[in-house]
Amino acid sequence: MPIVTLTTDFGQDSPYVAQVKAVLLSSLPDLAIVDITHSVPAQDVQQAAYVLAEVTPHFPPQSIHMAVIDPGVGTQRRIVFAELGDQRYIAPDNGLLGLLASQQPGPQRFIELTEPRFWSPEVSDTFHGRDIMAPVVAQLAAGLRPDELGPEINDLVMLTVPKPTVLPNQVVGEIIFVDSFGNLISNISRKDLRRATEGSAVRVQCGTHEVTRIVKTYGEESPGTPVALFSSSGRLELALVERNASKQLGLGTRAPVTVTW
Amino acid sequence: MPIVTLTTDFGQDSPYVAQVKAVLLSSLPDLAIVDITHSVPAQDVQQAAYVLAEVTPHFPPQSIHMAVIDPGVGTQRRIVFAELGDQRYIAPDNGLLGLLASQQPGPQRFIELTEPRFWSPEVSDTFHGRDIMAPVVAQLAAGLRPDELGPEINDLVMLTVPKPTVLPNQVVGEIIFVDSFGNLISNISRKDLRRATEGSAVRVQCGTHEVTRIVKTYGEESPGTPVALFSSSGRLELALVERNASKQLGLGTRAPVTVTW
Amino acid sequence: MPIVTLTTDFGQDSPYVAQVKAVLLSSLPDLAIVDITHSVPAQDVQQAAYVLAEVTPHFPPQSIHMAVIDPGVGTQRRIVFAELGDQRYIAPDNGLLGLLASQQPGPQRFIELTEPRFWSPEVSDTFHGRDIMAPVVAQLAAGLRPDELGPEINDLVMLTVPKPTVLPNQVVGEIIFVDSFGNLISNISRKDLRRATEGSAVRVQCGTHEVTRIVKTYGEESPGTPVALFSSSGRLELALVERNASKQLGLGTRAPVTVTW
Repeated sequence: MPIVTLTTDFGQDSPYVAQVKAVLLSSLPDLAIVDITHSVPAQDVQQAAYVLAEVTPHFPPQSIHMAVIDPGVGTQRRIVFAELGDQRYIAPDNGLLGLLASQQPGPQRFIELTEPRFWSPEVSDTFHGRDIMAPVVAQLAAGLRPDELGPEINDLVMLTVPKPTVLPNQVVGEIIFVDSFGNLISNISRKDLRRATEGSAVRVQCGTHEVTRIVKTYGEESPGTPVALFSSSGRLELALVERNASKQLGLGTRAPVTVTW
Repeated sequence: MPIVTLTTDFGQDSPYVAQVKAVLLSSLPDLAIVDITHSVPAQDVQQAAYVLAEVTPHFPPQSIHMAVIDPGVGTQRRIVFAELGDQRYIAPDNGLLGLLASQQPGPQRFIELTEPRFWSPEVSDTFHGRDIMAPVVAQLAAGLRPDELGPEINDLVMLTVPKPTVLPNQVVGEIIFVDSFGNLISNISRKDLRRATEGSAVRVQCGTHEVTRIVKTYGEESPGTPVALFSSSGRLELALVERNASKQLGLGTRAPVTVTW
Repeated sequence: MPIVTLTTDFGQDSPYVAQVKAVLLSSLPDLAIVDITHSVPAQDVQQAAYVLAEVTPHFPPQSIHMAVIDPGVGTQRRIVFAELGDQRYIAPDNGLLGLLASQQPGPQRFIELTEPRFWSPEVSDTFHGRDIMAPVVAQLAAGLRPDELGPEINDLVMLTVPKPTVLPNQVVGEIIFVDSFGNLISNISRKDLRRATEGSAVRVQCGTHEVTRIVKTYGEESPGTPVALFSSSGRLELALVERNASKQLGLGTRAPVTVTW
């Protein structure tokens, strides 16, 4: 049976998460459920889209990823099934899958959920994660063919992802994620900086965080020192060694990052 | 094998939770354990009773729900096994199961745990979740008959649940739960308001939160707007669209809610 | 198949945790993974060592415990496999396993991970939990013999654990752990105080927390009262009944504790 993962803004340890699991397990008591995160800031579709793009492609093929950041619940926003590469998704169509869809080179398929016979008999106006998505996920995990769920669509809501500006001797990007250590992860990739990192002199600047070289890992410098390095997902990351850079420097998502060489 | 769920005030990610799981898995390595929540405020029996009542009835029949909010651990308070509807429970007898017992229409049975042969050989004075409840849960999951655990009792400690006052043109209730979005959930049910919601004019007021109609879902209004709606569990809920009503309005449990029509 | 546990400082609900699980489950979709905690304060090796020592010995024999508190990731610090009693471990060699190794009376074996053929094909400089440890854990769980991983070592990095000073009529120790209730757990064991607890008069003092007897459990005193008792792991613990002693008294790890009799 495929693995099912959950990504929500319900809050750590929220009873809403348990309600979703109760629905899944009532259909499939042996289902393996993995919590990706329930700590997405409330209604922050962009942060969730980033997490989904970083994490879900590494799961076993045919895993089903259910994502519920759904400020439009109960309105006319669509709920979609998606196949992206070898992974499957169920999410509201509000941009959550937009980053994955723009990055994933492989085949893509999107289906709108329109067939209420696969949903709970009673659907609330405020909790479609429990009443529509979870029942559909359980039936997909049990073998339901996705094309039973509704019609194919080709106008998925995309996400405007900020892209770095690459100039002859400068790249300007921005912070797109702050991890739990307070490390600042930017939208600048190793590829964007290929020219810079081959050269000797480089200057990375973000607010008061300023360094003149890119290190390989935190431990090259002593605690408290500002460093720039490539994150484990290949993005330029700014950190204070063994400290919380976000808190100490007052920097967060959308802060501009400049690399000059 | 039945699913086992855990509801505690041990704190998110607490090593105490892992100790309970170690006991369960040492008996039954294949046991499926679901965390309902470990974030109940310390010693808050009423919040936990609410969560148990909302969530546990939706699990597969014969699931075993272990709840440990236990300020009286090591004193003379009893530990009980309960059958409520098609679900089973192990908890201290301090009101935790009182809300479920008062709501559950089906058959009910309560047994006091008095037989130390089903417990850990060494029982600490401060952690009966690990030393008494977890071993009993594991043995129940493996097929132990509940009547082996001790004598039946019929004087379970009940919980005084605040009920709304229903007047000819007014209902007065109170907030009983604040969810992780800061939405305020009251003890007023859809049934209590049947008359009001059929009429056209209704006024809902709680502190500075005041609205003149009940909407179907958050997305009907723009971000920041106060709304009243029926929660996914059928209770009157007050919210600020895409904002944290509890923090922004300074409202929490016990705040009075008035509906006039 | 053995159970795998995770202990990290990645933060509750961190996507880094999900990345580790994705690696584990991609090899072994049926693997049972238990989260011990992901809330170790960032880079706090000593707190994590304490949690590992308290919790892991209670898991089923041959469980594999993966611990990632790794400020030296990417530097020359070693990664080790350990057998301690009937449990197995994978962790950076920075003291994480030092407390367990000093307490565990049974057979011990340590192996340095030096064989990259068991690692991910691409190893990042900043996330060896995902790229080295998780693949090795998955292969151990599937039956790989530990001696394939690298050479045996006998110079594990130990942890200087503060030990209490035992005088004829006084023991001086310190707080080593604060639990999620704010209870203060010291390094003074029941054995250190055997003489004291048999006598009638004893005085326990830590900052402004001062009591003249050791109780059996919290519920012997009324809410708010300072108490001293033996924790569920047999250590002297200071608490305020149903209150957060750490916050209310401003006490934390390293605060000295004096017992006089």
